[in-house]
Amino acid sequence: MHIFGESHGESVGLTIDGIPAGLPLKVEDFLTDIERRKGGTQKGTTPRQESDLPIFKSGIFNDKTTGAPLTILFENNNTRSGDYAKQRDFPRPGHADFVASKKFGGYEDYRGGGHFSGRLTVALVAAGVIAKRLLNIVSNGAISVYSDILEIGGETDLEKGLQNAIDAKDSIGGIVECSVTGLPLGLGEPFFDSAESLISHAVFAIPAVKGIEFGAGFLAAKMYGIEHNDSLIEASGTTKTNHAGGIVGGITNGNELVFRIAVKPTASTPKEQESLNWHTNKVETFSVKGRHDLCIALRVPVVLEAVTAMVLADLMLLEQQIPRRLVDKK
Amino acid sequence: MHIFGESHGESVGLTIDGIPAGLPLKVEDFLTDIERRKGGTQKGTTPRQESDLPIFKSGIFNDKTTGAPLTILFENNNTRSGDYAKQRDFPRPGHADFVASKKFGGYEDYRGGGHFSGRLTVALVAAGVIAKRLLNIVSNGAISVYSDILEIGGETDLEKGLQNAIDAKDSIGGIVECSVTGLPLGLGEPFFDSAESLISHAVFAIPAVKGIEFGAGFLAAKMYGIEHNDSLIEASGTTKTNHAGGIVGGITNGNELVFRIAVKPTASTPKEQESLNWHTNKVETFSVKGRHDLCIALRVPVVLEAVTAMVLADLMLLEQQIPRRLVDKK
Amino acid sequence: MHIFGESHGESVGLTIDGIPAGLPLKVEDFLTDIERRKGGTQKGTTPRQESDLPIFKSGIFNDKTTGAPLTILFENNNTRSGDYAKQRDFPRPGHADFVASKKFGGYEDYRGGGHFSGRLTVALVAAGVIAKRLLNIVSNGAISVYSDILEIGGETDLEKGLQNAIDAKDSIGGIVECSVTGLPLGLGEPFFDSAESLISHAVFAIPAVKGIEFGAGFLAAKMYGIEHNDSLIEASGTTKTNHAGGIVGGITNGNELVFRIAVKPTASTPKEQESLNWHTNKVETFSVKGRHDLCIALRVPVVLEAVTAMVLADLMLLEQQIPRRLVDKK
Amino acid sequence: MHIFGESHGESVGLTIDGIPAGLPLKVEDFLTDIERRKGGTQKGTTPRQESDLPIFKSGIFNDKTTGAPLTILFENNNTRSGDYAKQRDFPRPGHADFVASKKFGGYEDYRGGGHFSGRLTVALVAAGVIAKRLLNIVSNGAISVYSDILEIGGETDLEKGLQNAIDAKDSIGGIVECSVTGLPLGLGEPFFDSAESLISHAVFAIPAVKGIEFGAGFLAAKMYGIEHNDSLIEASGTTKTNHAGGIVGGITNGNELVFRIAVKPTASTPKEQESLNWHTNKVETFSVKGRHDLCIALRVPVVLEAVTAMVLADLMLLEQQIPRRLVDKK
Repeated sequence: MHIFGESHGESVGLTIDGIPAGLPLKVEDFLTDIERRKGGTQKGTTPRQESDLPIFKSGIFNDKTTGAPLTILFENNNTRSGDYAKQRDFPRPGHADFVASKKFGGYEDYRGGGHFSGRLTVALVAAGVIAKRLLNIVSNGAISVYSDILEIGGETDLEKGLQNAIDAKDSIGGIVECSVTGLPLGLGEPFFDSAESLISHAVFAIPAVKGIEFGAGFLAAKMYGIEHNDSLIEASGTTKTNHAGGIVGGITNGNELVFRIAVKPTASTPKEQESLNWHTNKVETFSVKGRHDLCIALRVPVVLEAVTAMVLADLMLLEQQIPRRLVDKK
Repeated sequence: MHIFGESHGESVGLTIDGIPAGLPLKVEDFLTDIERRKGGTQKGTTPRQESDLPIFKSGIFNDKTTGAPLTILFENNNTRSGDYAKQRDFPRPGHADFVASKKFGGYEDYRGGGHFSGRLTVALVAAGVIAKRLLNIVSNGAISVYSDILEIGGETDLEKGLQNAIDAKDSIGGIVECSVTGLPLGLGEPFFDSAESLISHAVFAIPAVKGIEFGAGFLAAKMYGIEHNDSLIEASGTTKTNHAGGIVGGITNGNELVFRIAVKPTASTPKEQESLNWHTNKVETFSVKGRHDLCIALRVPVVLEAVTAMVLADLMLLEQQIPRRLVDKK
Repeated sequence: MHIFGESHGESVGLTIDGIPAGLPLKVEDFLTDIERRKGGTQKGTTPRQESDLPIFKSGIFNDKTTGAPLTILFENNNTRSGDYAKQRDFPRPGHADFVASKKFGGYEDYRGGGHFSGRLTVALVAAGVIAKRLLNIVSNGAISVYSDILEIGGETDLEKGLQNAIDAKDSIGGIVECSVTGLPLGLGEPFFDSAESLISHAVFAIPAVKGIEFGAGFLAAKMYGIEHNDSLIEASGTTKTNHAGGIVGGITNGNELVFRIAVKPTASTPKEQESLNWHTNKVETFSVKGRHDLCIALRVPVVLEAVTAMVLADLMLLEQQIPRRLVDKK
Repeated sequence: MHIFGESHGESVGLTIDGIPAGLPLKVEDFLTDIERRKGGTQKGTTPRQESDLPIFKSGIFNDKTTGAPLTILFENNNTRSGDYAKQRDFPRPGHADFVASKKFGGYEDYRGGGHFSGRLTVALVAAGVIAKRLLNIVSNGAISVYSDILEIGGETDLEKGLQNAIDAKDSIGGIVECSVTGLPLGLGEPFFDSAESLISHAVFAIPAVKGIEFGAGFLAAKMYGIEHNDSLIEASGTTKTNHAGGIVGGITNGNELVFRIAVKPTASTPKEQESLNWHTNKVETFSVKGRHDLCIALRVPVVLEAVTAMVLADLMLLEQQIPRRLVDKK
């Protein structure tokens, strides 16, 4: 899987190799999740909107995957680079502006965050649509990947958390949970390819994620062994409790997979900030322009489902629980 | 990097490819960290001890790395499989016994947890010794990787936390922090190979880790943007605060790298537990035999340093801040 | 590096990650090599022509690479699927039709060979343009990758070989050589990542290649040691002869890299052939329709340069002889 | 798969991850192939002999693979480094001495070729034993990997070819063929992971190999299309001829896999040679000391079988024709 593109470039997109042949895929299959990811539909998200129809460039024939590499593009139609050009004087705190410039020698596309932009997550969502569909078909609907917001700014009443941010005229963070039911026992490998390793690897590809915990997570650090241990009560692997979050020894144990992530507040706060002015080399006050989300966590659930489904589909393929091709056509 | 071996097999060990030629390495270089990892030296850790001298099998010549693959073995001298054989009736809650048996079709070496044992972490520690030495030499001592325990059972007074567990006759979890100073700006890649992705991937290879957070971590989810953002105050990249934990946009920003992990209580609690008896197929009460740590978190810091150093050394090589060979001999 | 697309689909293209930032790239830089690859300009090649202008979709900003993934598309404008649909009754001998159908369960895009088509080599050529440019710049012009045809149908007089095929109304094979001057000593690793391993791996990605030999190659099998050995005559590594083709022990030795490949005759011969009719399940006579090259070897040199340059650029990056970014802009 | 070790170090060995659990493996299973690889049993091979019993260090329990990483060591008992130390004045023509020294900054273990030694092929042979056993079991004996010498010094009468070398007091090259029957259709992927790409990659890991050709190979370059094309005559995929050597479009087609390799003459010829003296910096005459094979090709067949079987086992796993574990024990 490769994702590519820039916030204000011509397009963003993805290339995936290794999708089993015969998976039905149409443009319509992507619309629900792409809509979930979009800003502009609820308070706290950016008014920028893209039509965001996936354009299939390869790998699909007669509305089914062919087994060859699949490339999908999303065009960038609705960019206003003017907003961002002005900010080139300041590397925005909390953004990748400064590290990108140093790492890439000043050659990076800096408009709207360039390749580092959250815009790229539309490609992740598209990959997730494919992965979720695959998991669903091969499990006859048993596997379900679901993510939702648990907290905004420390409030479990999400409306209240968001209103706090609006009142404070500031951006705000949040906590998002993901759970997967119907997963088979045995995914993941000991040590370096543990299920937690692979999931966290993918999850930290989502911009603004700063923490992850599985099952009881950080609470486990305060528990006694007899409290935390999940007693096995059925030969199928079902446990009485699920403090492990469905993973023991790095391997899925057939119980529900559960984990939570911490999403930092949107770096582009509407408030005035200080940063080093690249030209004057002095710390100065400035404000971020452009259209931004107050709470980026609101848009994360569908992206979190996506990267989770991608990892699980890969593990199912490795464990031969997804075939190399769906039922033969002939 | 491969680690291999079993708790009660003949040995555990590691093979690493890609170490720059010319790195000085002697048995003595390993002793401090191996000692830090050992049980038996403080209350709360297992009385099992191994001499644990690294045996170099390849890749070293005249006390320096050759650039060829390096293999190190640690012999298992001090095993008492009898203790464990008895427990074969019950898959131990919190251990990999059940998933290992299902995943590997009953062929796994189940003695003492087999390949899933914490015994394997001695191989991680050895790799860490090499990685830390390499980071130290190429940075002229500037890079320092340091890890310590922050909490035991929710107590920052560690003695008290441990005593609670001893009094409760139960095992207990903890929180461990790792910080790295002197790291250059620019390590990590956008999205899938973000510094957080790679570090968390490696960290979840450590048995018993159930959560990780960078910088402000889960606390960031409760913060406003203006609180969380780290203002840039020097052209070198130094920020006023470090809520990001030294990583922005997935790239190290030259500030201190800081992250914390949650370690669950040792699964082998001394208390009686319930689990399904594999033979009777009924839930029964049993006790775990064998020598075990009350608080596995006590042994984690040196292992955490090790996997962190390994990832950072890899990133430094990729970013060409570590050369393919140290100063030419001729 | 991923290549994607189908012969008669919407487009073919490529995504490359890891190109150093700051490499100047314009559409015009691709035209010479794309022209060299095209059919229709000499006898023996297919009259099908595409305008074949590379469309940059990501990774380029202000005419320079940004360090982010680079995606290039080539549109397929000039397809005549009608020609191929007819042949769907027969899996064409020497083509991938049969194996593709079996491997991908009948879901493959079969039009014009689909993903298996030589059309995809335009993406290889584009990658080669980038790789050659990179090698050229970092070596100040010292590294030169050059490929040419040695034989057609066994004739070193290429006109004669081609005329033989035209007279015989049949397709014909050929031998192509590639040589690289100015390469540094030390590329490649012992055993599995030997320079020969990596080059041959890439070269067999070119359709129709059935053999490769380095230096003296198959002739070496008939030689005595004293004949074959290349005496070292200068401290720089220069040898008196070059039977090794510039690679010893899997590592480049600083002498000219030389290897040759065998290209089989175009599978789509104009002659009548026999194959199993998929519908009647009987062996029948048929003729391949469509526009095809008599001698595909004629179009191979620029593709061979491309994959060779890609491998060498990768090895130079690994050996840190190509920097992660070209001279800093600021 | 990693191989490690040095010719005159303590040991050579290998670590393999991903072997299905439940494969029966005993020391005795390795003896035949290890014996085939050994020198000293026929004229033209080196009198150096090692007992070469594989020592299992991990991954085997009750004589079966466990699914965990498998490590095998071979001790080096029979080394005479004195022979080689003398030659340190001269980088031996045809050997890796010179490139190794430059690439690894003078830190390489130079004794007997160090890590570049043919001694390492015992590790390849061990991996091959495992791979062949796996292929055999999962195919119920249908898959057979077989390799033999076709020519020595250009003579198909092998005795004569060898006698020529003995008479000439020189080393000599040869051609070795490998064929695999019973292989399923569908192994390999289009372009970069073609079956030819993967096989050639592995084959060029064998020291002294300088060329490879599949099916008609270099002869195909002289053929017309109608001669070279293999007509499909059965729905199973059987073709009338097999000029393709069992691979079309990079994918196995179910026919016999056939390829040949060119092995150069042993670099350590008994004859006097010239090379640059590293100390005097002048070209001087010298003779290689030590025990060496006159014709290294004689020892190649079992190594060629090994790397071929390894690649095919990997492809069968990927194509899910080898399960992740053999029949469940319980």
